[in-house]
Amino acid sequence: MNYSDSICIKVVIVPLLFNLRLRSFALIADDIMDNSEIRRNAPCWYRTEGVGNNAMLDLVVLENSVYSVLKKYFSDHHSYVQIVELFHDASTKSAMGKSLEGMLRKSGSPDLNQFTMKNYDLIVKYRSGFFSFQLPVGKDFLNCFGTSGVDDKVGSDINEGKCSWLAVVALQRANDEQRQIMEQYYGKPGEKAVEKIRDFYTELGLPATFAGYEEENYKIITTHIQQISKGLPHELFFGLLNKMYQYNR
Amino acid sequence: MNYSDSICIKVVIVPLLFNLRLRSFALIADDIMDNSEIRRNAPCWYRTEGVGNNAMLDLVVLENSVYSVLKKYFSDHHSYVQIVELFHDASTKSAMGKSLEGMLRKSGSPDLNQFTMKNYDLIVKYRSGFFSFQLPVGKDFLNCFGTSGVDDKVGSDINEGKCSWLAVVALQRANDEQRQIMEQYYGKPGEKAVEKIRDFYTELGLPATFAGYEEENYKIITTHIQQISKGLPHELFFGLLNKMYQYNR
Repeated sequence: MNYSDSICIKVVIVPLLFNLRLRSFALIADDIMDNSEIRRNAPCWYRTEGVGNNAMLDLVVLENSVYSVLKKYFSDHHSYVQIVELFHDASTKSAMGKSLEGMLRKSGSPDLNQFTMKNYDLIVKYRSGFFSFQLPVGKDFLNCFGTSGVDDKVGSDINEGKCSWLAVVALQRANDEQRQIMEQYYGKPGEKAVEKIRDFYTELGLPATFAGYEEENYKIITTHIQQISKGLPHELFFGLLNKMYQYNR
Repeated sequence: MNYSDSICIKVVIVPLLFNLRLRSFALIADDIMDNSEIRRNAPCWYRTEGVGNNAMLDLVVLENSVYSVLKKYFSDHHSYVQIVELFHDASTKSAMGKSLEGMLRKSGSPDLNQFTMKNYDLIVKYRSGFFSFQLPVGKDFLNCFGTSGVDDKVGSDINEGKCSWLAVVALQRANDEQRQIMEQYYGKPGEKAVEKIRDFYTELGLPATFAGYEEENYKIITTHIQQISKGLPHELFFGLLNKMYQYNR
């Protein structure tokens, strides 16, 4: 696989298909795991009449449908094997990342002592390491301070006690007294918990910190793109970057 | 892929690895789906402290571990791509077969009107179509009349209301009055249901029918093996066949 192909496959094809697979897979799996009732104004798939536990088998079929698509459209491509292997790898690592994320929430409530930047980086590296431009930090920020989301409810990271970038930085900055707010409200259900934690993040100045962090990352990525001397055109990467950057505004 | 390789991969390598994957995958998945508590004298994996819903992610890792093994030991093999594709295919079809099996048990109780030989053949074709010598009929027989099983409790097919070969043939032979026994006890919990159905099968002469059916299949497979004029040695296939044949005795 030459350099240009490698970039093209890693940056365009795999993230695109993997994103489709991840979305459908994650929505169904999450609903089963969370024992949810409603998804997008309709009963969750596993609660549909005649589906039930078979939903887990449907997940296997969904997972494998990606390989059917790859076989149909890429089996003649000289990098077909590498594309398929990248998928196996991405699928495994993504599951490991989500698993690690879940391990920090023992018996339903978050273990704040495990909310370190090291663990956060590990989760991000595995969970979304294959989406070069996903800027997971931005996703965490939107989940808390955004006005609307497509799949995620605003504040759901707080209710579910996720090990988000905001939670980790807040815990780094909090004194013993402030930490009590996190202990009391983080990972608890309801709108009140979300408001308490959001106010606390604001009090600690996290929105400004995030803006600075994002600006810095934008510059680093811009430099990286400009240094690419062969392969796909710079415009492709700048297009993707600006899409994400503006999306987070 | 030449004929000999094709046979070797289809008959030996894929069933072997797929069997390993199926076992570990199925045990964990079945326990989640059935809300089970104990597996082999220990708490089910998903009930282990700190695992819980993460078990579903472990399933993804298990599923993909097969591809890591294939990559490590077969990536230089000229049929590597075909082996990987066979796995994708086997995995999808197996899930479809199990899904079909589950669809015949709506809301927990079996839909006996759907227990036809056509549906049974479809389930078998998909669920275990990749195990040439698994003799699914024999497995059904052992589950009912066997003295012990490794994974399956004797009688579990009856308790769970599975669309087994025995149930399908019994329904074919039963008159309206006899059918009531199936309606009343098939797919119900407890030892009494198992005894009632087992006695009913015996009354209908199913053990003798099964012996004849098995004998007939043995002869057909023997003829097929003798007709293979190239590729792997006949002894390999006869060895596998006799292992299964004696196992069912």
